[in-house]
Amino acid sequence: MTGPLDGFRVIDLTAMVSGPVATMMLADQGADVIKIEPPGGELMRRVGIDNRGMASSFLSCNRSKRSLAVDLKAPEGLAVVRKLVGTADVLVQNFRPGAIDRMGLGEETVRAIRPDIVYVSISGFGESGPYSGQRVYDPVIQALCGLAEIQSDRKTGTPRMVRTIVPDKTTAVTAAQAITAALLARERTGRAQHVRLSMLDTMVAYLWPESMSALNYVGREGDPARGQMGLDLIYRTQDGYITAGAVTDAEWLGMCEALERPDLVEDERFRTPGARFRNAAERREITAGEIAKHASADLIERLQARQVPCAPILSRMDVLENDQVEQNRIIEVHEDPVLGPVRQPRPAARFEATPATIRRMAPFLGADNADILAELGYGTDEVRKLTDDGVLVSRPPEPAES
Amino acid sequence: MTGPLDGFRVIDLTAMVSGPVATMMLADQGADVIKIEPPGGELMRRVGIDNRGMASSFLSCNRSKRSLAVDLKAPEGLAVVRKLVGTADVLVQNFRPGAIDRMGLGEETVRAIRPDIVYVSISGFGESGPYSGQRVYDPVIQALCGLAEIQSDRKTGTPRMVRTIVPDKTTAVTAAQAITAALLARERTGRAQHVRLSMLDTMVAYLWPESMSALNYVGREGDPARGQMGLDLIYRTQDGYITAGAVTDAEWLGMCEALERPDLVEDERFRTPGARFRNAAERREITAGEIAKHASADLIERLQARQVPCAPILSRMDVLENDQVEQNRIIEVHEDPVLGPVRQPRPAARFEATPATIRRMAPFLGADNADILAELGYGTDEVRKLTDDGVLVSRPPEPAES
Repeated sequence: MTGPLDGFRVIDLTAMVSGPVATMMLADQGADVIKIEPPGGELMRRVGIDNRGMASSFLSCNRSKRSLAVDLKAPEGLAVVRKLVGTADVLVQNFRPGAIDRMGLGEETVRAIRPDIVYVSISGFGESGPYSGQRVYDPVIQALCGLAEIQSDRKTGTPRMVRTIVPDKTTAVTAAQAITAALLARERTGRAQHVRLSMLDTMVAYLWPESMSALNYVGREGDPARGQMGLDLIYRTQDGYITAGAVTDAEWLGMCEALERPDLVEDERFRTPGARFRNAAERREITAGEIAKHASADLIERLQARQVPCAPILSRMDVLENDQVEQNRIIEVHEDPVLGPVRQPRPAARFEATPATIRRMAPFLGADNADILAELGYGTDEVRKLTDDGVLVSRPPEPAES
Repeated sequence: MTGPLDGFRVIDLTAMVSGPVATMMLADQGADVIKIEPPGGELMRRVGIDNRGMASSFLSCNRSKRSLAVDLKAPEGLAVVRKLVGTADVLVQNFRPGAIDRMGLGEETVRAIRPDIVYVSISGFGESGPYSGQRVYDPVIQALCGLAEIQSDRKTGTPRMVRTIVPDKTTAVTAAQAITAALLARERTGRAQHVRLSMLDTMVAYLWPESMSALNYVGREGDPARGQMGLDLIYRTQDGYITAGAVTDAEWLGMCEALERPDLVEDERFRTPGARFRNAAERREITAGEIAKHASADLIERLQARQVPCAPILSRMDVLENDQVEQNRIIEVHEDPVLGPVRQPRPAARFEATPATIRRMAPFLGADNADILAELGYGTDEVRKLTDDGVLVSRPPEPAES
């Protein structure tokens, strides 16, 4: 069985994370994604743990794709990519505004070759404006979109970054949706188009629903920080940390029982949701004091038995072995002939009829040069000449450590 | 012009955020999304700032939709929804596993009415396993997927939550992509299917690319926290906070110039990227000391002039007035006849030929009962009877404050 995007070809001229993770989602869903890189390979090929020349971060952003490494500054190299464009349904690029035109792959040029291509431009800040020329850097987007303020230290008010690159990765998922929607529109109307999105726009839209809704009503704005209650519920136990939250009366009763404090159920300060909200500080202090007396696993079991939402705070290593994660088979181990056993999370959405699956590990640089050129009608001699001339480049796996 | 999803009808049986924001994206893109709520309305109708009975958080998760409020426990109410299902392309639900079957709208029932419907189930933890029956609560997912550990305090190691509901919102975007992909597959193959996704699965896949890639190679795992460098770059200025990062030699030169410390360029500790990496602590201390002597706006201008990636840390109120945000027209003000001027972020992806737009503000409870039933062929008398019997419910705007 094939994925929902089976039969579509995507030319992937993106680097780093926002573009590559978008096209990786499409690749897992069956699209033939051809990642085009300069002769030296993109920067992410040097990020993370190395395994025979394959960097772990690159692998995790580029699995299920094929690789073409070509010098676009050489006319013959550009010709290869233009020929490839003629076979493609989508072209995605995330260079700084204007760069793709200077490279000879601007929309007009591409559309002359392939009129019905979906042309996708992902940027950091948009095509114009004071930041548009700036190199994109995840913390800069976090600063501008309000996320660093949202994460401010509650006591000191000092802003803080979120320590995972939310703007890059959210833009990736948003771009994957937009590309899929544009393909669907083309399928129904025959009409292709240019789709543009910026990380900044994406993040404002993403944060808004609960983090910025207090600004909805012009002239009646509230303090957006008030909506963040309940998000700091981390408690120390005897041997670690857990989160637990009791909102309804039933959950509060369950928590009091689990903590062996039935007296709290009758306590006037906490008898109703409204009272518990008003006396939140006292309630949390008492709760924290009781939770500290228990071991995590034991307390989680007691809370779960009473239907109180809760979980241990897992480290990333813990995640690998968590019962629920195992039950869901989220993390797969692929036996790769070169890399050995490789862990990857399976695509999140499970399509019953057209499953998304990890098609292969990420390609080594230029691993598919010969196949792709053969598909385009290049002869073996031509490919050899392009390789000898340095127009096509490949870098095979490094020898295994003995 | 209409959006890329124009002509599709989505039955939205979701509540809170993960489902509603997914279907809102589809609604902005032109789908006819009919939100079905119980007679009391869903919980989010009571969250946030109230404006004539419209809660700001509900608005931000449910714009561009229509509302049908119906008692599904009444056979006549269930009959209305089943009839509606017969006209739909997609049904989305995010009840706890099993609940939708007990309500009489399980996949088998629905598919008997509408064989080619895309049936979508969003859950917190999956359909089975130790957490599957637990009420979903964003911090619990943050705890289980590793995000709370990623956000740990660097000095104390205490886990922390991210203070925006990343699991809910990321699941929304991921679900929107999956639904669109399933519609595309149906368009091409005629085959509809069940699509399932859980918040936990979504978050592991989302975090993995840079936050968990150190765990890729089985038996050669590294410390995943090492990949987080550079994400804490917040500096205090005379009058606020900024972020700035100098990675390349040119950027470092630009930063030294902007800070009026040309001597640092020649400093052996910082002469190469490698040296700057090794001496990061000293470099940051010196940089922080210099940045503190400047005012934010002035320094940002000096850094930008020298191509150093930087930005002020904006509060959410600042975001509304930022030059780049204004340039991109991210935040729109809609004049609503009932609510007055309402701010909303426009959909992030800009489709040149089939624009996604905010079609209308969120509907008041049951605002579209009569229209929807008329479309289904119900007569005026039938609608009146269903309303009198309490099967259909509506709650009009509250009177304006005088």
